[in-house]
Amino acid sequence: MPNISNKGASMPESPIRKLVPYAENAIKEGKTIYHLNIGQPDIKTPEVALNAVKNQSLEILAYSRSEGSEAYRTKIAQYYQKNDIQVNHDDIIVTTGGSEALLFAFGSIMDADDEVIIPEPFYANYNGFSTASGINIVPVISKIEDNFALPPIEEFEKLITSKTKAILICNPGNPTGYLYSKEEITKLANLVKKHDLFLLADEVYREFAYDGHQHYSVMQAEGIEDHAIMIDSVSKRYSMCGARVGCLVSKNKTVIQTALKFAQARLSPPTFAQIASEAALETPQSYFDDVIEEYVERRNTLIQELEKIEGVKVAKPNGAFYCVVELPIKNADHFAQWLLEHFDIDGETVMVAPAAGFYSTPNVGLNQIRIAYVLKKESLIKAVSIIKKALTVYKD
Amino acid sequence: MPNISNKGASMPESPIRKLVPYAENAIKEGKTIYHLNIGQPDIKTPEVALNAVKNQSLEILAYSRSEGSEAYRTKIAQYYQKNDIQVNHDDIIVTTGGSEALLFAFGSIMDADDEVIIPEPFYANYNGFSTASGINIVPVISKIEDNFALPPIEEFEKLITSKTKAILICNPGNPTGYLYSKEEITKLANLVKKHDLFLLADEVYREFAYDGHQHYSVMQAEGIEDHAIMIDSVSKRYSMCGARVGCLVSKNKTVIQTALKFAQARLSPPTFAQIASEAALETPQSYFDDVIEEYVERRNTLIQELEKIEGVKVAKPNGAFYCVVELPIKNADHFAQWLLEHFDIDGETVMVAPAAGFYSTPNVGLNQIRIAYVLKKESLIKAVSIIKKALTVYKD
Repeated sequence: MPNISNKGASMPESPIRKLVPYAENAIKEGKTIYHLNIGQPDIKTPEVALNAVKNQSLEILAYSRSEGSEAYRTKIAQYYQKNDIQVNHDDIIVTTGGSEALLFAFGSIMDADDEVIIPEPFYANYNGFSTASGINIVPVISKIEDNFALPPIEEFEKLITSKTKAILICNPGNPTGYLYSKEEITKLANLVKKHDLFLLADEVYREFAYDGHQHYSVMQAEGIEDHAIMIDSVSKRYSMCGARVGCLVSKNKTVIQTALKFAQARLSPPTFAQIASEAALETPQSYFDDVIEEYVERRNTLIQELEKIEGVKVAKPNGAFYCVVELPIKNADHFAQWLLEHFDIDGETVMVAPAAGFYSTPNVGLNQIRIAYVLKKESLIKAVSIIKKALTVYKD
Repeated sequence: MPNISNKGASMPESPIRKLVPYAENAIKEGKTIYHLNIGQPDIKTPEVALNAVKNQSLEILAYSRSEGSEAYRTKIAQYYQKNDIQVNHDDIIVTTGGSEALLFAFGSIMDADDEVIIPEPFYANYNGFSTASGINIVPVISKIEDNFALPPIEEFEKLITSKTKAILICNPGNPTGYLYSKEEITKLANLVKKHDLFLLADEVYREFAYDGHQHYSVMQAEGIEDHAIMIDSVSKRYSMCGARVGCLVSKNKTVIQTALKFAQARLSPPTFAQIASEAALETPQSYFDDVIEEYVERRNTLIQELEKIEGVKVAKPNGAFYCVVELPIKNADHFAQWLLEHFDIDGETVMVAPAAGFYSTPNVGLNQIRIAYVLKKESLIKAVSIIKKALTVYKD
């Protein structure tokens, strides 16, 4: 039998997927699971987006342009302009989800064995994309005690080598929920300018900024027009994860021309989903106001309930819909599996994402979990009460 | 300004895209263009597929499973079984177009600098996927005199090195239209077994087999269950190029598990398009009968008209909807550009794909073009008459 590649063998498994068989067994046993583990919101997709697809009258479901339909790119550019991000349609390449935008960015700016510095904990699939691209992630640890704020800029600087091509941030962060300030972005901007690096920012949670904070994009930072590359997606903004539409945005023409060649090779992003995404831009502000209000209430409820548990430490997020929680246990991987296999209250249990998978440094975050607050308040209260009770029974 | 990667710089441009600015200029000048250059059929998408998307009542456009929805995979497996390909749903990973299936396959079985042997001329985007994956294509020339039949198996064998991991074929072929016989597939099967290689087959044109020929899949070849990987797509079968749904199929469990990790990193294939693709499987046989009849007539018309031109050599295709044509000129790149810039009959001209871009060996196929017969017969007759006249005027 022919061998698979070393690359394929070293592709990481998602830290959540490992638990899926245990969850499936729990469901077979008749248990109900509160899913705190996933980033699939329960928020309804705007009707205007769904209706656009229902009402289309295509006779041939044809390719769009490789860079995305002109109409859609023009409208996203307007959306960015309204959000104080000065870009035009030709600074934008529409991609199949934020995932593909990241792959195009990695391919466009990094060769085999090049390095990208990323504050950890970070979105676990960055590991998969870097393995697939043959590049290496160099992590900088951010700390739960600081709410996962940007680590001191010197920590980044001392990791820069001749292999370093970029710094990647997720803002607001998955899994941390941390929203970087203008000052933090400015520090990064100065650093990438000084060392002639790219600054990649995954800003797919831009709309989810709470407590009066304003999101500040790398595309707004002055003097780094040739360095900044923004990754975006409709998945979370409009609760359209299944659309698979994102984009790569940069004022650097060479980056756009290069990414376009990757885009041309795969022909086009999905057509139905572009129709939905274009229509989604008509979503009224009231939709977002309601969604933000809902998430803020969920976050407040979640944190309030978690803080009632002895020995639990919570990073207070002011963006996205995740938070990282430190538990009074040794190994969250084991705890998460145990919750599914051996624990329930009246047939109900909880699925969480062990946070170690969001760190690149080994043996960090072992006692942490990520909670996605994508469930209704009552469910969150119930879920946390199950964790609370479980912690009194669980033995490491 | 930070530099882009060597990989990005060496990503090839599509051989067709180079001509797009000239085509756009021609249109601005008021010319009408017969597009013989693209693989976007004018055939209508089956209504059953479009209606499924119109009639869906999703409230949340959610992720599907990374490997594709269970329902869809189950139904495609049934479709394959009906076509004498014995696979189950768990031998299938649904991908974002055949393109992504190829990228997953390359990533799963090849490391940087590994080699895949491909008969040329081949689908030009294989170049882009191999550059993106950091691997190398080793071409074997097939000849227009043989209708682009499989080159002698010894030609493959003498190219095999320790770096060789796979042989890739496109069957029926784009750009050649050649349909491999059972005997040819068997020869390849024996070779990959002997040298413990993978046999990748891009079979997205399976339905398009003419003149009573039956398509014979690598998945039907005996004894190479662990070697064979099939790439498929709904794009051409149902004229649904914009769906972006394909799949990777293999009986080799390790390959499937490895490809699944690539699939998990990008979360899921597009949901709307999976709904359309699942429904498309209900397309009545009469749809295909009509489509095949239409393509056969188009092919016959095209070849008949081309053969009237002195000095023109045509490979007679018995599959897909392309053919490669040798013209009595030196440089088809230049001719194709000249047609758009400097030639028209009553304001009408033709856009063709120069075939050199489908060869990996330099300076081969310079006098060849690829014609996609995706236009109505009358348009094909008109387009060929324009080429005929142009050849009497054109000077290399």
